[in-house]
Amino acid sequence: MERQFKVTFLPDDVTVRVRGGTSLFKAAADAGIELNSACGGKGTCGKCAVKVRSGKVKRDTTDLPLHLKKAGYVLACRARVQDDLVLEVPARSRILKQQVLLEDASVLTARDVHGKTFGQNPFGRRVRLSLGEPNLTENASDLTRLKAALCQETGCEDAEISLAVLKKLPETLREGDWQVTVTLVEYGGRTKIIDVEPGLSKRPPLGLAVDIGTTTVVVYLVNLETGETLDKRGTHNRQARYGEDVINRIIYTVEQERGLEVLQKAVTKTINELIQNILLRNEVSSKDICVAVCAGNTTMTHLFLGVPPKYIRLEPYIPAAWVMPWVKAAEVGLVINPEGLVVNFPAVASYVGGDIVSGLLSTDIPESDALSLFIDIGTNGEIVLGNRDWLMACACSAGPCFEGGGITHGTRAMPGAIQKVAIDPKDYSVSISTVDDKPPVGICGSGLVDCLASLHKAGIIDRAGQFQEPKTPRLREGEDGPEFVLVWADEAGLDEDIVITEADVKNLLRAKGAIYAGIRSLLRMVQLPVEAVERIYIAGGFGNYLNVRDAVRIGLLPDVPLERFRFVGNTSVKGARMALMSREAFDAAVELSRKITYVELSVGNDFMDEFVSAMFLPHTDLSLFPSVAI
Amino acid sequence: MERQFKVTFLPDDVTVRVRGGTSLFKAAADAGIELNSACGGKGTCGKCAVKVRSGKVKRDTTDLPLHLKKAGYVLACRARVQDDLVLEVPARSRILKQQVLLEDASVLTARDVHGKTFGQNPFGRRVRLSLGEPNLTENASDLTRLKAALCQETGCEDAEISLAVLKKLPETLREGDWQVTVTLVEYGGRTKIIDVEPGLSKRPPLGLAVDIGTTTVVVYLVNLETGETLDKRGTHNRQARYGEDVINRIIYTVEQERGLEVLQKAVTKTINELIQNILLRNEVSSKDICVAVCAGNTTMTHLFLGVPPKYIRLEPYIPAAWVMPWVKAAEVGLVINPEGLVVNFPAVASYVGGDIVSGLLSTDIPESDALSLFIDIGTNGEIVLGNRDWLMACACSAGPCFEGGGITHGTRAMPGAIQKVAIDPKDYSVSISTVDDKPPVGICGSGLVDCLASLHKAGIIDRAGQFQEPKTPRLREGEDGPEFVLVWADEAGLDEDIVITEADVKNLLRAKGAIYAGIRSLLRMVQLPVEAVERIYIAGGFGNYLNVRDAVRIGLLPDVPLERFRFVGNTSVKGARMALMSREAFDAAVELSRKITYVELSVGNDFMDEFVSAMFLPHTDLSLFPSVAI
Repeated sequence: MERQFKVTFLPDDVTVRVRGGTSLFKAAADAGIELNSACGGKGTCGKCAVKVRSGKVKRDTTDLPLHLKKAGYVLACRARVQDDLVLEVPARSRILKQQVLLEDASVLTARDVHGKTFGQNPFGRRVRLSLGEPNLTENASDLTRLKAALCQETGCEDAEISLAVLKKLPETLREGDWQVTVTLVEYGGRTKIIDVEPGLSKRPPLGLAVDIGTTTVVVYLVNLETGETLDKRGTHNRQARYGEDVINRIIYTVEQERGLEVLQKAVTKTINELIQNILLRNEVSSKDICVAVCAGNTTMTHLFLGVPPKYIRLEPYIPAAWVMPWVKAAEVGLVINPEGLVVNFPAVASYVGGDIVSGLLSTDIPESDALSLFIDIGTNGEIVLGNRDWLMACACSAGPCFEGGGITHGTRAMPGAIQKVAIDPKDYSVSISTVDDKPPVGICGSGLVDCLASLHKAGIIDRAGQFQEPKTPRLREGEDGPEFVLVWADEAGLDEDIVITEADVKNLLRAKGAIYAGIRSLLRMVQLPVEAVERIYIAGGFGNYLNVRDAVRIGLLPDVPLERFRFVGNTSVKGARMALMSREAFDAAVELSRKITYVELSVGNDFMDEFVSAMFLPHTDLSLFPSVAI
Repeated sequence: MERQFKVTFLPDDVTVRVRGGTSLFKAAADAGIELNSACGGKGTCGKCAVKVRSGKVKRDTTDLPLHLKKAGYVLACRARVQDDLVLEVPARSRILKQQVLLEDASVLTARDVHGKTFGQNPFGRRVRLSLGEPNLTENASDLTRLKAALCQETGCEDAEISLAVLKKLPETLREGDWQVTVTLVEYGGRTKIIDVEPGLSKRPPLGLAVDIGTTTVVVYLVNLETGETLDKRGTHNRQARYGEDVINRIIYTVEQERGLEVLQKAVTKTINELIQNILLRNEVSSKDICVAVCAGNTTMTHLFLGVPPKYIRLEPYIPAAWVMPWVKAAEVGLVINPEGLVVNFPAVASYVGGDIVSGLLSTDIPESDALSLFIDIGTNGEIVLGNRDWLMACACSAGPCFEGGGITHGTRAMPGAIQKVAIDPKDYSVSISTVDDKPPVGICGSGLVDCLASLHKAGIIDRAGQFQEPKTPRLREGEDGPEFVLVWADEAGLDEDIVITEADVKNLLRAKGAIYAGIRSLLRMVQLPVEAVERIYIAGGFGNYLNVRDAVRIGLLPDVPLERFRFVGNTSVKGARMALMSREAFDAAVELSRKITYVELSVGNDFMDEFVSAMFLPHTDLSLFPSVAI
């Protein structure tokens, strides 16, 4: 089994060396080729079929229909390497690339995060125990014997055991000849035995950090003994077809029969597909995953657990719970160890959720003296202001503009999305760049910011977003009023011109105005000027591709020196990863969620005043944007 | 609805007065008439049909087949009283009387039991809460609001909630206009919210005390607020068809595919039928039952929870657990509140189980200075010796003789069972008495003791149990050797003579010898003579019908003054009932289970020596039985 073989993948022409017995699926992953899988390696979906061009593979009895077999195809998840191979990967077996913010691949241990010293005490761990064999005079029950050895090893005197694990304990102890590997989860001061295996297993316990976003879901696989991130995957939330934003999803649960169940299953399926992909790529077993720490906004967390989010949407906006109960994986249907623990980050309010708490945990804001602003612009905009002494948070209904929603040619940041736009003020010619340099198919958030700034700089729109009348064929009257052509159909990856309409511009103004008004409202409550903000953290997928200069120019972000901005990426999954490795960090997050004062912007008139003032480019009060030349 | 009506049941001719709206099933229960029910009042099994002779009943749409309807039958569980009625109860709708030890009907509060002062702190309780309505500034989550009110009312700061209850919390709070009734269970230092109902419910929380015997199962329904026992029911354990004793049931789980599951379901079904009968009789709802405290022997407890008992039977006789995990009712399939708590008494060893611990709890032995002996003769014989300072226990494989097993015409203590026997030494004529004075159908435990004593007194058997040769047609050669006819077929409720064979006598000698040898072995370990025992508690169904004089005469019980014997009945259910009303009492039972030293009789030769000596009538050493004239 230890012999190495060369496996070449076509048409990519990438070769990797792997041990004999490795699955073709894993070899492909090693080669950077991502194969589809819907069944999770059971060999039933046929989505990972590859063609063997040369060499012999070890097949499985589970296999493909005869005609595919005859054509030389095998299932990558079931076939194993036993020879040098040349394999051809058909397009249909590949995962289409999606731009999902996964963060960098560096090993991040909780201890090292910006000087915080949370202890390494993960939610799950494994203990290897050698028990004494019973006899007629030493005749303690199996469980008593196990607990005594566990206590001696860990000091834990009152570990709990679930009925399911107890049921298999007698056979496991004897099969392992009184040597066993015990998987524990620890939470809320309790220790629970969630698995007992015969013998002294070398496999490490694994954990998942999960970011459940309204639009995308990201999963990290972490070795709980070393803290190493073994893999990470992201994809779109399958709930999106039932509603783009949280409001529409809540409406779906209220109006559709079994709507809540549908959405609960949709997100679970999303996460499970990521898990199964990760399991296959890394050749690890689902039962080794003993804990999943999840961060999502309040609605996402409700939907994930199947808790009705109905009253989140109705004044006075009350969620069922801020802190969700700990649940077993089997209760929510996650395909990890069925007795495994599922932990959710606590929320601050209906519209400031666990993802923001997790995000803050991952930054140094809670420990810093510097006045900091944390902005997460996703489907909603959440803003936190404060430092180690105090923290305030609000949410503004920015709408889904910056994720491409509600914009004629808006799109997510996927290959072909326009991410940069420049318009020549003389001839109104447009230069663009797209994600992965693919033919343009739409405009994503960062492209829209650029676009708004460029339209204004070129004099095509005025400060109120009204289209002017420059002489260019690009400006024309469309079905819904004036529109500007960014890309002509013959240069686009679509059958039509890519345009931005006056209605789109108005939507963008409302969105950026809401964010800025939120920032100003928080600052006004503590009577501090914009300049007092020493650091601005931009979290989320949007931030990573953003031209900050343009974002300031349109009045989305405050006009402070550029060096004060920090792009912190997917902080939600980062915080979840920290908590996974450190219960101390999670406890700190719970404290944090209690410490944050939520400001309901719909109470009082301040926000509306700010909002109206912010609906201009960059703002009615130009003194707030000294660096922006008009 | 408050109007009263007269309901007369025929052919019993019993009349009761009940409120309008009462179900006929409950009216029958009030009249002392026990109706069948397999469906638990759903109206689907048809087993409780009664005929309306006069008066009008309020029927239900769920009903009987047309031909029965036309004949005037209605389902007692679905039809309600709205008129004076005369009803006829057909034989097939009646529960056949079974002699199951239910204990007396007196209200027994934990506090009053023989001067023990366990506090009244039941495992379950209800709290009625009025919450403040949320608004935009007081916008705590539903759960936070509930917990704050709960904390104010009870002082409990960290009540847990299950996902299932949280899911219905938002609607419940609003349906009850922010008034709710919360059902809590408290155990192991934790408080769990298992139900939330809209409004301030007056219904008390209910609990069950359950005795899970190898042969019979008994359930008490208790009002957890007052401590009142509302009802009690008993029946045969449905597991019996898979094996008479624990050994055969363990073998069934090992040899039969899914055998463990079959036995688990059999006992759950037994308990559930009792519960459903109780629910119907008392017109209470299963969801009001929030806890069940169960006591059973070690094997029964394993089988009830579906935990493999395999190694209980194999040397060195190791159970999976002495202390079982707390489980939710839904996990074992009990038809109480699905989130309700199921508590099992801890065991001492494989053959000294929770029923013995529960039994001891119900006596004053653990607090007394008097040297006491506790004997529970059921399918097995368990013996405990000691006082407040020390306790030792052993189990002897007495076999099922005293419950009628392994004896040619042995039977349980059911109607028609011979419970007393006297044989005239002159003409060998036999006089008997049977349970309920029904025609004799077999001999139960107390009858067998009498029988053995009488056979010996009459000189029919010698001290070793050998049949002698008196001149009587009652003594004859049967298929399996000599046998003595107790009842001729023409006087029996059977088609054959009721006999006792030499093999039966040998079985009885072995059984009584094992019990006595167990008692002597314990006494020898502490070097005390039989006379030192100040009190002898006889627990279980067997004891209640026993002629102690005869039991001493055959050498089953020690020869001490009769006033030292106490018949304490079903102590297992009594102890469970105490624990139900007092967690303190349960904690005391856990302590007790740890304090008892288990003596494995198969280690060393003492027991075997004692056993051989005890196989005579009454014993080889007659000095141990000075009162018994030979």
